[in-house]
Order: sequence, then structure tokens, then C-alpha cells
Amino acid sequence: MIALRNVAIVGVGHSRFGKRVDVSIPELAWEAIKEALKDANLSQEDIKFVSLGSFGIWSSESSPGALILEYSGLTSAEFLRVEAACASGSAALKVAYNAVASGAVDIAMALGVEKMNEVGTAENLEILGRIGNYFWEFQNFGPTFVGYYALYATAYMNKYGATEEDLAKIAVKNHYYASFNPKAHIPKKITLEDALGSPYISWPLKLYDCSLISDGSAAVILASEEIAKKITDSPVWVRAISGATATANHSKREDFLSIPSVRIAAERAYKIAGFDAENPVKYLDVAEVHDCFTIAEILAYEDLGFVKKGKGYKLAREEQTYIGGLIPVNLSGGLKAKGHPIGATGISMVVELTKQLQQRVEKQRQAPIEKGVALAHNVGGTGHYAFVTILSLSKS
Amino acid sequence: MIALRNVAIVGVGHSRFGKRVDVSIPELAWEAIKEALKDANLSQEDIKFVSLGSFGIWSSESSPGALILEYSGLTSAEFLRVEAACASGSAALKVAYNAVASGAVDIAMALGVEKMNEVGTAENLEILGRIGNYFWEFQNFGPTFVGYYALYATAYMNKYGATEEDLAKIAVKNHYYASFNPKAHIPKKITLEDALGSPYISWPLKLYDCSLISDGSAAVILASEEIAKKITDSPVWVRAISGATATANHSKREDFLSIPSVRIAAERAYKIAGFDAENPVKYLDVAEVHDCFTIAEILAYEDLGFVKKGKGYKLAREEQTYIGGLIPVNLSGGLKAKGHPIGATGISMVVELTKQLQQRVEKQRQAPIEKGVALAHNVGGTGHYAFVTILSLSKS
Repeated sequence: MIALRNVAIVGVGHSRFGKRVDVSIPELAWEAIKEALKDANLSQEDIKFVSLGSFGIWSSESSPGALILEYSGLTSAEFLRVEAACASGSAALKVAYNAVASGAVDIAMALGVEKMNEVGTAENLEILGRIGNYFWEFQNFGPTFVGYYALYATAYMNKYGATEEDLAKIAVKNHYYASFNPKAHIPKKITLEDALGSPYISWPLKLYDCSLISDGSAAVILASEEIAKKITDSPVWVRAISGATATANHSKREDFLSIPSVRIAAERAYKIAGFDAENPVKYLDVAEVHDCFTIAEILAYEDLGFVKKGKGYKLAREEQTYIGGLIPVNLSGGLKAKGHPIGATGISMVVELTKQLQQRVEKQRQAPIEKGVALAHNVGGTGHYAFVTILSLSKS
Repeated sequence: MIALRNVAIVGVGHSRFGKRVDVSIPELAWEAIKEALKDANLSQEDIKFVSLGSFGIWSSESSPGALILEYSGLTSAEFLRVEAACASGSAALKVAYNAVASGAVDIAMALGVEKMNEVGTAENLEILGRIGNYFWEFQNFGPTFVGYYALYATAYMNKYGATEEDLAKIAVKNHYYASFNPKAHIPKKITLEDALGSPYISWPLKLYDCSLISDGSAAVILASEEIAKKITDSPVWVRAISGATATANHSKREDFLSIPSVRIAAERAYKIAGFDAENPVKYLDVAEVHDCFTIAEILAYEDLGFVKKGKGYKLAREEQTYIGGLIPVNLSGGLKAKGHPIGATGISMVVELTKQLQQRVEKQRQAPIEKGVALAHNVGGTGHYAFVTILSLSKS
């Protein structure tokens, strides 16, 4: 094996998430780029490589990258766009990470942007539904995307005795923390009654079990160790970023109680980071997980090894993923309440965790930082793709 | 700088290019994947990373990668899709190259696929026109994509005295070689009269000055040196793959006589390969260049340094880019006659050059291989992106 270079995050930026009819795609991207450049005290010419995570299908732009480069003055960088469904942001981060780690460039940017509200709800339902297994499931049964996750929820509840209330508690937690995040799409607290009283979308998942159709952007600037030391006194190191894929065909999956690609990506990341995969929580201060639906957050607890299989819902029931619990999760508000602009989501998680580790988020949602390590978990489709990223205040 | 690993091409595959209404996207991709796996004598499980180059906008599939992975049994690989307009294939190759060079995996696949004929001509005109500078040019003047290149053609002809006949000779050459390539979209010879008599699309560019709206796929399997030696006796080494970007706004360009991003990408690639940038031809046996329009091939001769500025049209006029001339170019038939399925194009060039270097193309279009080195040139948009790749029979 080659000894790759250490890679540090030296600046982060994040737009307000929401229904952003006020901006074009390049303007939206620029909000995050501008903030990240300012955070790192760098100018556009310093950025030698940009990878853009963007699903892109909602947009009227056929090649959004060229517009963004042009608008934001980044045309001296090498550039490409990366797509891996809802994990596009993490895929872009991985490509930018490799560009720095391999020595190709010293400073790179991973950027994520999506403007999903360029189409209406009906079209979004179809677009998202098609992300499942197209050949068999979508063509023959036409499930919506929430329908796929409803299969997981029913299987899980049936097997382990989790209740709709356990799911609702995830939504309540994530809305609670979003209420302190000024960049969240819906920064409002909700009650358990609000969640349980919301209409069913695909039984047992209700409106408040679902993440949001959001517009937004996020950016991370990465640098080699040598350069990072010159830029910042508080670098956050990318200790591991691992990806995996798995079948999109649910009829080929072992069960509906786990997302196989997440288990593989986590295993790979823990190995690189030197973690005991039996107990990763002991290394972590905080995590952002892919709560596209409340059941997905519970599955993530288990697939990431935070608890044993079948015990995830208890973390929700016992409020163990609030600050002060076993491990605080989604203090940003998560996809559920911060929002889920597809291509931006993976990068947004890393922006959030960087600021968590540097202790510069709003105090009501700041995790205690003791071990200096955080984890991001980003899923594409219903687990067609998965990425696990580990960030750390120390290099190793 | 880190010493990256040497990366070899150990297998290539290529679908028939054309109007492929007979296949779905995963079926089309599988044609190239199957051939590449057979060529390398590998199975799907051996491929640990796949990067897919696909522009994707024509397709009814929102996330084509998941379908392709599923259909072709590649779900044990890590995967992402890459887009850089018409240079998407080269961008995907670069990402796969980095995955092997950096030691992340030992065997990777770069795959390109596009199905452009899922929409009609009018919609294609709009989609392609929007790839130019959207803010100013497309919104205010509404040029088609050929209109952008017509600006280059008129500027070039006016400055250097090139004629429509010089442009037509590029088309005649590329159709000539395509006639021997059974996978070409239009494998038919044309005469100078055919080309000059074809209708104007955007003066001075005529129908036969334009490349094709094609469906197709191409795949390249890359391996580390250690693995490559076990797989093949005739590896082709990736000596350099360099990318660059430049403004998409023509009003910001110095002149319409050159594509700046190509010059930068070539300079970077020549530096890595150790070439004298003043005379790269002396190192090369054969090249594939991005002849999206005939004028683009002439500009490529100059921007790549095959001849001095203003002399490119003479290479066409004197037939110096046929076999036996200064340097044979586009013996595949090029984008002009082999076809231009956007995401597949950059990979297709590398498939062609690998087979040229290994002397296994049809004898009428086989370049003499003496130096054992070949060059691919792939442009995105009107030079928003450019990639230059250098392949070689020797490692250095």
C-alpha cells in the first residue's frame, strides 16, 4: 500500500436550506463557496480541484458545474461532477479527498448543491420512486420512495416490537435540534402528538417520518497537511471515507432489517480508522446519519454498530441520541428537519461535524467534544450506495 | 510528491455506436462491460471500483449507475457517476485511474454510456445549446451548439485563410477510417463533394462538419502493476491524464482561435509524461482528438502542439493526419463518423488507442506502432472542460 497524504478540512460553508426560489443554482452554490473561502481565508485561485456532488435531475441546467465554476470564479480549478443518488455529496467528497491524498493537488473543494423545488410534488414522487429497483419494483408495482422505506419499517416493527411512537421520537429529536439551526429548512420544534397525528404517506410512515424536498448547498475545502498548517490552527482531519454498493433489488436482499452497503462501508471505514468495529461509539463524540425516513435513522444506529441489531429503536425510545445520551445524532436537524437537498446532503453532514468538532455551532446543539472524533453516514437510494466518513481533531 | 502506482489498461470493451433503439441503458452498458471483462479474463467480482461517465440528461433514468450495477452484476464494487459535459468519459477515467494509482483498489473499471436518441432532434438542439454560457449567450442569443463552433470556424478562416474545403477534408478522412470500423455509427466513406454539398447548419459549418447524436458505451479495466502483470502480457500504461477548465463565456476568451483549457491540460500531461511540449508529435504514433465539429479537430492540432498556431488547416489540406502522414488522427472515425455518445466518448478514445497500440484494429486503419505512445484529447462544452490522456506500451 501507498502511504497517502493526510488530508485536513480547512474551511466549510453552508447555505440556508429550504425552498430557495430566491436564487438560481449558481447563486445557491456561491452561498456555500463564499462562506467556505472566507472560513479558510482563501481565494478562488487557491482552489486547484473541485468536485461537485449534484444529482441534477430536477434542474433545468444540463451541466450545472460549468455555470457554477463560471459564476463563482473557480475556472482555474480542475473540475468534475459526481453522482451517487442521495450519496452524491459523499462521493464528491471522496473524489476531492483522493485528489489531495494522492498528491495531485494541495487544495481541493468538495461542493454539493441541489435545487429540488424546480419541479412539483408529483414529479418529485416519480423521480424519487425511480431510484428504487427500476426493472422489477418500479415498473411492476410503482412504489414511491417512502414505500420502499415503509417495507423496512413494517419488517422492523414486526420483528422487534418497535412502535410508531419510537419512529416519531426520531422526528421530534431532529426537529428539536433543527430549531436551533438557523440554516435548517424547518427550524421548528414539533411534539410527539404532532408527529403521530400527521397523515400517513405509506403506512406506517407518516408525513413527519419523511425528510424534506429541499434546495441548498454546502462546501468543504480540503488541504494537504503542509498547507493546512499554514491555513488554520484548528484543522479537522479526514481519517477515513469509505464507500460501498449493494443490490437495488429488494427481492435479492437478505431481509428488510438492515442496509447491507452501510455495513460494508462502516466496516471499511472502521478498519482504516483503527476502530474496534464491535464498539465504535467509544471513539465518537457525535454523528450525522442519513435519516431520509425516521426508520432509516434507527437502521443506521444498528448498521453502524452503535447498538446491536434489534436494539436501535430503544436508543430512540430512551432518548439516547440526544446530547448527554450514548451518542448524540443529527444535532443539525438531520435530513428530517435541516433538509435533504440531495447532492448537498453528504457535504452538509461534514460541514456540521467539522463545526461540532471545532465547537462552533449554536450552544443548544453543541455536542460535548471529548474524544475529538465524529462520523457521517450517507446513503444513496435504498442502500444502492453508502458512504461512511470519519473526521477527527487528531491526525491518527 | 507521493510516488503513485503505475496503472495499466488490462482490458477494453466497446459497443456498436449508433441509434440504439434495440437496447436499454443497462443493456447498452453491458455490451462494453462484457467485452472488457472477457478481454481481461476477469469476472465482475474482480472489479472493486467503477466510475461511470454519463451526461445522463437524455435518459429517462434518474440514476443510471444503480441500474447498470444491478444489471451487470457489479454490485460488489464501489461506484460513482462522473459528469463533465462531453468530457465525462475522460473525467470518469481519471477518477478510476486515481483509485488504482493511489492504492485504494487494485482493479477498477472506467465505463462510459449515453443514450442520446431517447429524445428528438429539437430537444437535443436545446440541451446541447444550453451547454454554452447560459447566463449571457444562450439566454440572450440562443445559439445552438454548432453556432458556438461556427464562431471559431469563421474567426479561424478569416485569420489564416483556411477554407470550407479544408474543413470538409477532416470529415472525408474520418468517414474514410470509420468505413473500416464495424462499431462506427456511420461506417461509410463520403466524398469531398458530399461534404461540401451538404446543407449549412450554422455557416460555415455544414451537416458533414458536425459529429453525430449517438448511443453507445465503452469500458476500460485498469489494474495496478502487480496485478496487471498477472492478467496480461500486453498492458497499456496510463502515462498521464490531465484535466483543466476555462471560462464558458466566449466574450471572456482571448480569441476564437484556440481552446485555452486544452492548452493547459496538454501542458500538464506533457510535463507528467516528460515530453518536449514544443514537439509532442515526435513521441506519438497516433491520436484520437475531439472532433465534435471539423474545425475542432483543426484547433486540436494546434492546441495540442502538433503544429504551430495557424498551421492546423494545412495538416488537413495536405492529408498529414492520415496513416503515413505526420501523425494519424481519429483512425476510429472520430466523433464525426464513429459517433459521439457523450459519456462514452472519452472512454471510447482510450479503447481505440489501447487497441491501436496493441495492433489489433482492422488492418486498413491500424497505425504503424513504432514509438508505442498514443494521445487522447477530450473536450467538454466549448472548452469548459478538457482532458489529455497519454497511453504507452512502456511504463515510463
